[in-house]
Amino acid sequence: MTSNPVMGKLGRRLRLGVIGGGPGSFIGSVHRGAAVLEEMYEVVAGVLSSDPERSLSAANELGIARAYSSAEEMFATEADRTDGMDIVAIMTPNNSHYALACQALEAGFHVMCEKPLTNDLDEALDLVKRVQASDRQFCVAYGYTGYPMVRQARAMVEAGELGEIRMVQCEYVQGHLAALTESEQRGQNWHMDPAVAGPSLILGDIATHSYHLASYVSGMEPAQINADVTTVVPGRDAHDYAGIQLRYANNARGMLWITQAAAGASHGLYLRIFGSKGGLEWHQEQPNELLYRRLDAPAVTFTKGGPGLCEAANRVTRIAIGHPEGYREAFANLYSDLAEAIVAIETGSTPEPLSLWYPSVQDGASGVRFVQAALRSSDNGGSWELCGPV
Amino acid sequence: MTSNPVMGKLGRRLRLGVIGGGPGSFIGSVHRGAAVLEEMYEVVAGVLSSDPERSLSAANELGIARAYSSAEEMFATEADRTDGMDIVAIMTPNNSHYALACQALEAGFHVMCEKPLTNDLDEALDLVKRVQASDRQFCVAYGYTGYPMVRQARAMVEAGELGEIRMVQCEYVQGHLAALTESEQRGQNWHMDPAVAGPSLILGDIATHSYHLASYVSGMEPAQINADVTTVVPGRDAHDYAGIQLRYANNARGMLWITQAAAGASHGLYLRIFGSKGGLEWHQEQPNELLYRRLDAPAVTFTKGGPGLCEAANRVTRIAIGHPEGYREAFANLYSDLAEAIVAIETGSTPEPLSLWYPSVQDGASGVRFVQAALRSSDNGGSWELCGPV
Amino acid sequence: MTSNPVMGKLGRRLRLGVIGGGPGSFIGSVHRGAAVLEEMYEVVAGVLSSDPERSLSAANELGIARAYSSAEEMFATEADRTDGMDIVAIMTPNNSHYALACQALEAGFHVMCEKPLTNDLDEALDLVKRVQASDRQFCVAYGYTGYPMVRQARAMVEAGELGEIRMVQCEYVQGHLAALTESEQRGQNWHMDPAVAGPSLILGDIATHSYHLASYVSGMEPAQINADVTTVVPGRDAHDYAGIQLRYANNARGMLWITQAAAGASHGLYLRIFGSKGGLEWHQEQPNELLYRRLDAPAVTFTKGGPGLCEAANRVTRIAIGHPEGYREAFANLYSDLAEAIVAIETGSTPEPLSLWYPSVQDGASGVRFVQAALRSSDNGGSWELCGPV
Amino acid sequence: MTSNPVMGKLGRRLRLGVIGGGPGSFIGSVHRGAAVLEEMYEVVAGVLSSDPERSLSAANELGIARAYSSAEEMFATEADRTDGMDIVAIMTPNNSHYALACQALEAGFHVMCEKPLTNDLDEALDLVKRVQASDRQFCVAYGYTGYPMVRQARAMVEAGELGEIRMVQCEYVQGHLAALTESEQRGQNWHMDPAVAGPSLILGDIATHSYHLASYVSGMEPAQINADVTTVVPGRDAHDYAGIQLRYANNARGMLWITQAAAGASHGLYLRIFGSKGGLEWHQEQPNELLYRRLDAPAVTFTKGGPGLCEAANRVTRIAIGHPEGYREAFANLYSDLAEAIVAIETGSTPEPLSLWYPSVQDGASGVRFVQAALRSSDNGGSWELCGPV
Repeated sequence: MTSNPVMGKLGRRLRLGVIGGGPGSFIGSVHRGAAVLEEMYEVVAGVLSSDPERSLSAANELGIARAYSSAEEMFATEADRTDGMDIVAIMTPNNSHYALACQALEAGFHVMCEKPLTNDLDEALDLVKRVQASDRQFCVAYGYTGYPMVRQARAMVEAGELGEIRMVQCEYVQGHLAALTESEQRGQNWHMDPAVAGPSLILGDIATHSYHLASYVSGMEPAQINADVTTVVPGRDAHDYAGIQLRYANNARGMLWITQAAAGASHGLYLRIFGSKGGLEWHQEQPNELLYRRLDAPAVTFTKGGPGLCEAANRVTRIAIGHPEGYREAFANLYSDLAEAIVAIETGSTPEPLSLWYPSVQDGASGVRFVQAALRSSDNGGSWELCGPV
Repeated sequence: MTSNPVMGKLGRRLRLGVIGGGPGSFIGSVHRGAAVLEEMYEVVAGVLSSDPERSLSAANELGIARAYSSAEEMFATEADRTDGMDIVAIMTPNNSHYALACQALEAGFHVMCEKPLTNDLDEALDLVKRVQASDRQFCVAYGYTGYPMVRQARAMVEAGELGEIRMVQCEYVQGHLAALTESEQRGQNWHMDPAVAGPSLILGDIATHSYHLASYVSGMEPAQINADVTTVVPGRDAHDYAGIQLRYANNARGMLWITQAAAGASHGLYLRIFGSKGGLEWHQEQPNELLYRRLDAPAVTFTKGGPGLCEAANRVTRIAIGHPEGYREAFANLYSDLAEAIVAIETGSTPEPLSLWYPSVQDGASGVRFVQAALRSSDNGGSWELCGPV
Repeated sequence: MTSNPVMGKLGRRLRLGVIGGGPGSFIGSVHRGAAVLEEMYEVVAGVLSSDPERSLSAANELGIARAYSSAEEMFATEADRTDGMDIVAIMTPNNSHYALACQALEAGFHVMCEKPLTNDLDEALDLVKRVQASDRQFCVAYGYTGYPMVRQARAMVEAGELGEIRMVQCEYVQGHLAALTESEQRGQNWHMDPAVAGPSLILGDIATHSYHLASYVSGMEPAQINADVTTVVPGRDAHDYAGIQLRYANNARGMLWITQAAAGASHGLYLRIFGSKGGLEWHQEQPNELLYRRLDAPAVTFTKGGPGLCEAANRVTRIAIGHPEGYREAFANLYSDLAEAIVAIETGSTPEPLSLWYPSVQDGASGVRFVQAALRSSDNGGSWELCGPV
Repeated sequence: MTSNPVMGKLGRRLRLGVIGGGPGSFIGSVHRGAAVLEEMYEVVAGVLSSDPERSLSAANELGIARAYSSAEEMFATEADRTDGMDIVAIMTPNNSHYALACQALEAGFHVMCEKPLTNDLDEALDLVKRVQASDRQFCVAYGYTGYPMVRQARAMVEAGELGEIRMVQCEYVQGHLAALTESEQRGQNWHMDPAVAGPSLILGDIATHSYHLASYVSGMEPAQINADVTTVVPGRDAHDYAGIQLRYANNARGMLWITQAAAGASHGLYLRIFGSKGGLEWHQEQPNELLYRRLDAPAVTFTKGGPGLCEAANRVTRIAIGHPEGYREAFANLYSDLAEAIVAIETGSTPEPLSLWYPSVQDGASGVRFVQAALRSSDNGGSWELCGPV
């Protein structure tokens, strides 16, 4: 547990504006709650709907002080205020991320952007360049990487405690699309619409999460992948299943099992990594534990807040041992990392290296590239396609 | 997931003042974070230390707008402001709860008070009367009762799904006092000082939690208890172990196993209840699951946000199935219940009955009574002592 | 995995006779299967019923070569044969154990006797003396102590890896008597008849198991106990609940929670021990794992057959890592220990010390003493009663 | 729990001869112990080594009455005895299975044969024909299918409780080859020699198990598979990793993750199946539980011996609820099924259909075919290859 780096160094909280995530939105309350939980941000502005009138009423309903009828208006107005927002969180449909992110960067704001970064690889690569050319911080909301035990896993791999990595398995087996949904049948779910959500529901929506998680912890991306991407629920157009195999440059192998059509499954994000000296297992449904299997020694279970953990885990642990922290705390850790990095920029100091462990725009672009390689392979009868970091 | 009842009905957030819980305090950040998480409160005022100067600097450090050098000053000033605070959270050492709570009620504020309610039964009973005579809401911070799966358990017992209750076992087996601590050896931990913390560390600090949890879910308090309360770590004065047996009026039996001296244990709050038709098991370390054992049928596992749950659980579930919620979310549910009840009072409407499932001042007083009965039994060689609700 | 010590040293298998456990008996097939599983015994003789005719037909049905109409006949005849039996397994109703065991010892046979050893303490103490005065091996069938992970736990405590023991909790929470059974209502279950089963169903039937397990692993018996022994299911005469508190000479404390009336519970034998340096947890329902909690270090999970185990565990591990061994394998380990000790006696050598880790006649007598102390305490309103080893 | 069908109908135990599995062999003691555990077989004859002298001394060491110096001798002699063996268990290196099985069938013996059935598909298909042309029972030792909870899973799928099957995932993630072993480096492990063990260590040794388990429970074999079969541990020749994708005729998909090189992993056989109405999960390491996930209802956990199970599970459950049964009990269930089927043949009656749920020679041949398809796909860059039942 660290003291509040924002108040200490900046003397005020960071000011957050939000685009999207209006009342009733799952992700909207996650972002706003996560931002304020650690007392580093205040939510000051918002565009809550693409409909201007609805945007204003929604901001009022949520108690957001400065409501705007469009992103353009928010960027322009806030950039001019002496107490204007510092950062914008973009949680609109996937096909709008690129334009909004470009505008935000041009107006000088730091960015928290939902995943997938974009639907199009060129857009993603262009965003990488724009961020590199700026001094703005840009986080992609791969929220699962904020869990202390995920940080512990990454730190252990980086420190060589698993030896040479040999196998990665990551699965994301959800059940909420096991049957056709009502909104799907009415055509009212933008996630199901390729023009908005991108070419493959399952790949963009959740395979990117597991691909990122596997890469984030293992510290490497596969050189080649092959994939079987399809629809297993009759009557559905969108993909709801992807089986993907991974080959790494060091000869390691991996598999991803991704679906939202597993009847009765809950969240099902589960990562396993094995190296020459040991292995790690982490379940998002029990996120405060990390199983460390060891060659020739009995397995160890690390517990959030407990003994034997790395600084990378402890610095994002907020409450004492045994008190569970959940999804919103993990999400809040992305916000607090980002805050620390932003404050360093704003105060002209060097960011704490661990604060830069938030998912980057490059991570976002890698995800887009992975989606395209997987589709290509599946279309080509399971050919091995080049993948790897952007 | 319900929409925000505070903004919807009051048109503004509730204003919270805090007493205690300054920078570095575990419980301080828990209360403040829990209060703001669901966007129903803003923290507007604080007395962060008994030292006036330190109180002001601490409020500044935390970004709390209105800092006061004493509780008296805060109560008087805030009562006079048109935008003054609505409710105060008391998280000071145990022996100060009574006086502060009395002042708060007299000044017309609603109260969130840490447990144990008081160290003295007469004080506790007096507080019950004062609350009953007022129209103020008073919540005792038994935070574990805010978990959706605890609400589910209580609702199932109430609905008769376990049949007649026959056995209750609740344990709270922590490890952080398995060895003498540094602060303990320096005499700097007020929790170890009976004049401040009350007559029995283990009873006041955590046995009250497990007693309350068992009572909250089972819907009944034992008629008699016997106890073995002692110290198992050599060199310590304070109690660190309590073994307690329970007898209920309906002939049910129970046991409490309470310690902070279990080397290597983590949090260890674990409740089991069995009735004539089935049983329930809940671990705070895996709080999003509830095991429902059934007579003559295989066991069922309820999952927060999943199918088959009661409204009592679903109304305090904030994010979707499979996304874990933790200790601060549970705590936030106490705050949101309380908010809903306060708004009903303030707007002259009837509170939603489930919003009154927050732990009451009577629950707090029952805990004080339980502590005294347990000590009396242990001192009398394990005699059966009267217990039961106040 | 050790080679077969019986064939290697004796050149033949040991010959087992059985009393009780006819067709349809749970415990009969457990004993016979356990005896032959490791290829150290053959079942050669039996008295399968107190009815002579039924005894003969039952032996035939089970394929037991030499059937007898009474124990007396079996002892006399087998003692005279050059290929006569070496050892007898007694699995008759509790009130017959004493007389049969005396006869067996007098006829020169080693004994495997079901628990509780006797219903009467004087009988139990007399049996201890008789065994001590003989050179016969006498095992009491506390089968759970045969699990490799229970052996590991005992060895770790003995080696000081937990430090000074401070707390013991053992529970045995079964569900098969959660409702009145048919045989109970017809009065046809001898376990329910105090004249046969002893003064307290729950104490004799399963509390003795948990008392023994706690003592076996911790290496100590409580100096004093208090108890609340009662019946929670309406309409039942026999006890079905016992809550027991333990005080050890070294100031350690303990609790036993024992019931067969927990609706929906399965087997529920669960042991936890904490010392100054760490703790152990073992569930009979997942018997191949042992959780080792450590002060100031993350918890370790030992796995049967896996790395880091003591010889005490490995010598009773028969199949490779990850292949589960269950209740009958544990039971078989009592038989194989006993075989090794018997062969040492018969061949004039010194038994391997670890082979003497089978439960002894003293362990059996301690259990009888414990039952009596618990009943006395419960009758005296929870008085602390002397307990401890015989 | 059923009564002993062998004694009841045949009036004697079945007589088993063994080929292979001498002292020190893991699988030898598994077969012999499993055969005698349920009192349906006696081990009467054996060829314990390919070296005649060693074979005789080994039989003596194990207490097997009739030792032979070769399989030919055993078959000829036992066929002539009036009390000769009924069935032979073949547990020799893989490349000898075919010849021995042919001889056994020709000599009129029933057969229990280790897996993989053969290294060569033509041999496997020929064996299928020979068995079909005989009236002998032939079981392939896929031992995991003997677990009661695996039987429960199969029965549930067959009864339609999962609806239409949509996904199958089976993994077998072991760790014992995570580093080069000593015997491997000395070239002394026949499992590592393709001439003996077959073309692919990992495919023949354990992938066949998981392929069979997935097929056994789901009731279907994939129409096509693709595979990535390789070696991840440097310095090893044999395959130690296989990632395999499955496509079923009904459009269901599946994945197999198979390795023995996962450092710190134990046994790791884990099956998950999802259909339109629910899913099942089973871990061999906790074999007495079966998780049943349900569409729109909370998950149910079945427990061996507990309520709500099918006859298919209960008939192979030997001991009461909560008493764990392990690997050898599962193996014993293959033997007891086979015994029941053999006794039906020998007594001219119709076998109980559930007794024929032991793995058949066709199942063995399917496994050989699967191995070949997987190798072909991996060699062809992951092409989809035809698979399916023989």
